[in-house]
Amino acid sequence: MEIVRGSINIRTESQFEVIDITSKVAEWLRSIGAEDGLLVVYAPHTTAAITINEPESGLRQDIVDVIKEYFRPGGSWRHNLIDDNAHAHLAASFMGNSRVIPVAGGSMTLGTWQAIMFVEMDGPRQRRAELLFIGGRKPKVPTQGA
Amino acid sequence: MEIVRGSINIRTESQFEVIDITSKVAEWLRSIGAEDGLLVVYAPHTTAAITINEPESGLRQDIVDVIKEYFRPGGSWRHNLIDDNAHAHLAASFMGNSRVIPVAGGSMTLGTWQAIMFVEMDGPRQRRAELLFIGGRKPKVPTQGA
Amino acid sequence: MEIVRGSINIRTESQFEVIDITSKVAEWLRSIGAEDGLLVVYAPHTTAAITINEPESGLRQDIVDVIKEYFRPGGSWRHNLIDDNAHAHLAASFMGNSRVIPVAGGSMTLGTWQAIMFVEMDGPRQRRAELLFIGGRKPKVPTQGA
Repeated sequence: MEIVRGSINIRTESQFEVIDITSKVAEWLRSIGAEDGLLVVYAPHTTAAITINEPESGLRQDIVDVIKEYFRPGGSWRHNLIDDNAHAHLAASFMGNSRVIPVAGGSMTLGTWQAIMFVEMDGPRQRRAELLFIGGRKPKVPTQGA
Repeated sequence: MEIVRGSINIRTESQFEVIDITSKVAEWLRSIGAEDGLLVVYAPHTTAAITINEPESGLRQDIVDVIKEYFRPGGSWRHNLIDDNAHAHLAASFMGNSRVIPVAGGSMTLGTWQAIMFVEMDGPRQRRAELLFIGGRKPKVPTQGA
Repeated sequence: MEIVRGSINIRTESQFEVIDITSKVAEWLRSIGAEDGLLVVYAPHTTAAITINEPESGLRQDIVDVIKEYFRPGGSWRHNLIDDNAHAHLAASFMGNSRVIPVAGGSMTLGTWQAIMFVEMDGPRQRRAELLFIGGRKPKVPTQGA
């Protein structure tokens, strides 16, 4: 069993954005030769979150609307006395900045409609998702001439 | 150290339901001979969630009431233009579809009042919780005659 | 690879309190000689939560205000017919009672502004956070004379 770390870069384009990062994460799992184990997707940010759900475009906008309705951008939060993004910190605190996913035979055991989504709430920014895999890996294929 | 995967089936009986699955999960841990490690309970669904709290019947209904109050079943969500369960997707995105629990000597380190609960928000349906254990296992007891 | 368990005690001083426990957790990781792996911070309580965000004092109070606004202490929840802390159970169910953090070279890969926070919602009480590390450890330094 091994621990493998990685990360993916995410360029967000607007203040609020829900971005499907599933294929990038799956590609990373393949690149490290993952077999069975556990994957952690972790946002090292305080104004963004990670969630798992259906990446349908209407629903992604609904998620943004929920954040705006309950965490009120520009609202009279104490943190807005020294900054302008309290809504993003608060929503991130409640949603969580990470998700865990079982991996079987190199593939995440995502349900039919599940996708991993990066939730930007204070963009646009250059963002990152840290990846951590704990589990077994395929024996390395020797490179040509090795 | 090993990775062990499993799953439990959950038949939900109504649209909203908060079901205590602790004993089923504990039984699975015993069945695999788990010792020290980490357990992941993961719902491969986008309209159900996993949480940990007290399984008192009034509180389980309060959880449903919170979901109904803030995520408004039948509300004017964009996702409801193509389906009728936006509330369930949204609540699942915020609550999270998994929880992790340390395991010590084969038992989950749940606090006195804690239980693992499956939160159905778009039932009745046949559901599943994926289980993943990372850790040590008891040496296998040889079966009679082996 | 090893599994190491520990815990830290937390004395809360008021009904609501958001406490930065990052340095205690980091100290525990050092004490066990952690290298690369995964850390789990788990509250074995049903009226407290764990979150990760910026420990700025205004924001910590904003988190409490969000809990009070949406989960209504003293509200007409069913659980309040038999107890008085339904708000704390409900908020804990939604925020989650644990967080996971990748560890690299013995240090958590927390972002610049991230801290691990214990969220008390039914204090003052004596509380605990369970810690679990899965990963590699430094070879033990022999003690003098050994």
